[in-house]
Amino acid sequence: MIPLTKKERAYRISAIALMVICITILHYRSDHFNISSHILFRELYFLPIILAGFWFGVPGGVGASLSVTLLYLPFVLALPEGISSHKFGNLIQIIIFNIFGLLFGLLFGRQKRQQQKLLEAESLAAMGRAVSCIAHDMKTPLMAIGGFVQQVRRKVADDKLTTKLDFAVEQVRRLEALVGDMLAFTKPLNLQWPTGRC
Amino acid sequence: MIPLTKKERAYRISAIALMVICITILHYRSDHFNISSHILFRELYFLPIILAGFWFGVPGGVGASLSVTLLYLPFVLALPEGISSHKFGNLIQIIIFNIFGLLFGLLFGRQKRQQQKLLEAESLAAMGRAVSCIAHDMKTPLMAIGGFVQQVRRKVADDKLTTKLDFAVEQVRRLEALVGDMLAFTKPLNLQWPTGRC
Repeated sequence: MIPLTKKERAYRISAIALMVICITILHYRSDHFNISSHILFRELYFLPIILAGFWFGVPGGVGASLSVTLLYLPFVLALPEGISSHKFGNLIQIIIFNIFGLLFGLLFGRQKRQQQKLLEAESLAAMGRAVSCIAHDMKTPLMAIGGFVQQVRRKVADDKLTTKLDFAVEQVRRLEALVGDMLAFTKPLNLQWPTGRC
Repeated sequence: MIPLTKKERAYRISAIALMVICITILHYRSDHFNISSHILFRELYFLPIILAGFWFGVPGGVGASLSVTLLYLPFVLALPEGISSHKFGNLIQIIIFNIFGLLFGLLFGRQKRQQQKLLEAESLAAMGRAVSCIAHDMKTPLMAIGGFVQQVRRKVADDKLTTKLDFAVEQVRRLEALVGDMLAFTKPLNLQWPTGRC
């Protein structure tokens, strides 16, 4: 998941808050008996609730739906008695807001965590593929170098030269140990890979 | 993004279709004048629409909202004249379904593409980090081996031995070329990395 900077976070929270406030103002200013504009404004509340769930998981979705509840409930309770069935519908709507806030928060939060895991796994697999390819490329030349140098080492009598060749062999061993570590690191991954990657 | 298998895809499409059909059946069976159950069932349509947008982007969101429109519109048009304001509200709701289907489809689709790009970039960066670390670990031992073997090569007179040492030097050059390629591959990435990774 792309980690949010503080600025982006603040920007997103402000965007959600602004939406909730604007929709609430529109709602409070609209005529009580103009049901169609009511419905429009009421449905618009879904926008910030689902966005908040999408951006911030459960805390976002539930936070937004509770804010909407707090702002919208006084309006619903203040409705004239004449439209009581509409009032009851509005209360149901508030419950739905909260259920949706929680539900989509859970869904999006879960997806976010899965993405994070996938990202780590994919990075590790890519690293493993690179390391495995390099290790296989290094193996044969290193064995050849070690072999040739040791063959010469056995035939040379001069102490100075044998010391140098011993140093060279030591470094070859060091690189061979590195290759061994690399192959050990990639072995469990190899089982999952399709063939012909190197 | 986790690529969907055919089975998962079919499962998700069936889940959305099932939701839409169940909500529609509930809706058609409910009493025309029981507004609260109406509102409940109507709002439930958001669930498959947003889910479809989340799982399949714009085609999913718009596909689901159009299916809901096709299934729900006959019901709305068949409403008795007595509740015409409710009818008008339902038509607005249908428009909102379609706008939300498109809007959330766009939002989720965009997020999916960003995730895909991030995944590729992160894999490449991880690969680069691994390759760079290995290249730096190999550089010094290889230079030492090459240096020592060449020093001995100059002192040895035996043709057989010089041929072997020449072979060894050739293999060292091959590995050095590999290290050079590895460093060239990781150089542009190095600029973006924090220090102290190796």
